[in-house]
Amino acid sequence: MACGLLFSAGKDSSLAALLLERFYDVTLVTAHFGTTDDWRHARDAAAELGFEFETLELDAAVAEEAVERMRNEGFPRPGIQQVHEAALEAAAAEYDVVADGTRRDDRVPTVSRAFAQSLEDRHGIEYVAPLSGFGRGAVDDLVETYLEVEQGPSETVPKGDYEAELRALIRERWGASAIDDIFPDHEQTRVRGRADG
Amino acid sequence: MACGLLFSAGKDSSLAALLLERFYDVTLVTAHFGTTDDWRHARDAAAELGFEFETLELDAAVAEEAVERMRNEGFPRPGIQQVHEAALEAAAAEYDVVADGTRRDDRVPTVSRAFAQSLEDRHGIEYVAPLSGFGRGAVDDLVETYLEVEQGPSETVPKGDYEAELRALIRERWGASAIDDIFPDHEQTRVRGRADG
Repeated sequence: MACGLLFSAGKDSSLAALLLERFYDVTLVTAHFGTTDDWRHARDAAAELGFEFETLELDAAVAEEAVERMRNEGFPRPGIQQVHEAALEAAAAEYDVVADGTRRDDRVPTVSRAFAQSLEDRHGIEYVAPLSGFGRGAVDDLVETYLEVEQGPSETVPKGDYEAELRALIRERWGASAIDDIFPDHEQTRVRGRADG
Repeated sequence: MACGLLFSAGKDSSLAALLLERFYDVTLVTAHFGTTDDWRHARDAAAELGFEFETLELDAAVAEEAVERMRNEGFPRPGIQQVHEAALEAAAAEYDVVADGTRRDDRVPTVSRAFAQSLEDRHGIEYVAPLSGFGRGAVDDLVETYLEVEQGPSETVPKGDYEAELRALIRERWGASAIDDIFPDHEQTRVRGRADG
């Protein structure tokens, strides 16, 4: 069964892919707005992991609305949540099974049971979140065993998905300092490939 | 890493085992009260699936309290929940990673984020629920592909875990009709082995 898994090249979505690969025909799907080429980081990581890769271009209006909201509210969560839901909707139009790497302890994005059920009913698909029953400790243990990961500030380890474009859009509109105001935590992970396990 | 997965011989805990087997050294663990030999159904199913198997004997007082509660309240949920939590506590004393087969849409047992975190902190373990991000449709699709399952009323397809003993205890105390009052839904599944996938 064809599964489109939202992929950022970070550790969570990569681990989600390993959990699902035995059960579904997994394509790693990176949502972007066509404004930067950061999606290439995701494409490269997908190739290192040995998965099919596809981009999903979201409407620029989604990014506009998200950054306005982030700027007004002073923190990224509601904007990131909104873009993640738009990405799930777009993936649900193309795959029988849609997945993401949300963890039990994630504060954003989160996918409520109600949103999951609504997505499934409206599109006639299944939504699966293989890490939603794993806490941070369990995820970290599995990542250390099964993945090669680099970690660092987002300037040197940019995410492969829409988050990098949202940062670029914020910089363009309100300057680099606005990024620091909105995203106080810069640490990102990017997967370089599989570990020996 | 050693993972003890609470196992009933039903489809959910069996599928959870398949999801985890690549990542952990999984032992299927069946909690029981030592009052019937229904745990043997779980042992046989574990052997068919090719997993290590262990029983975990819970204190009889847990069963007493659960059936009193079920009888008083007229439905099984709070009692089942209580026994499931006792089983998780017992498993957490023996394994580095404790798992179960709870699904996204389960009404009982459920494991809240707060209980999961508390279990992890108190025992220094990780709790993982690999199916908690899967809805009924996704579980059914995977079960159909990867498992051989028999389904029927609980008289002919008894569960392998504590639920069969709770039913027996209720019958002994209040007669067979009390079981029908408390458990209106009799359908159970029992796994016979793996499908070809």
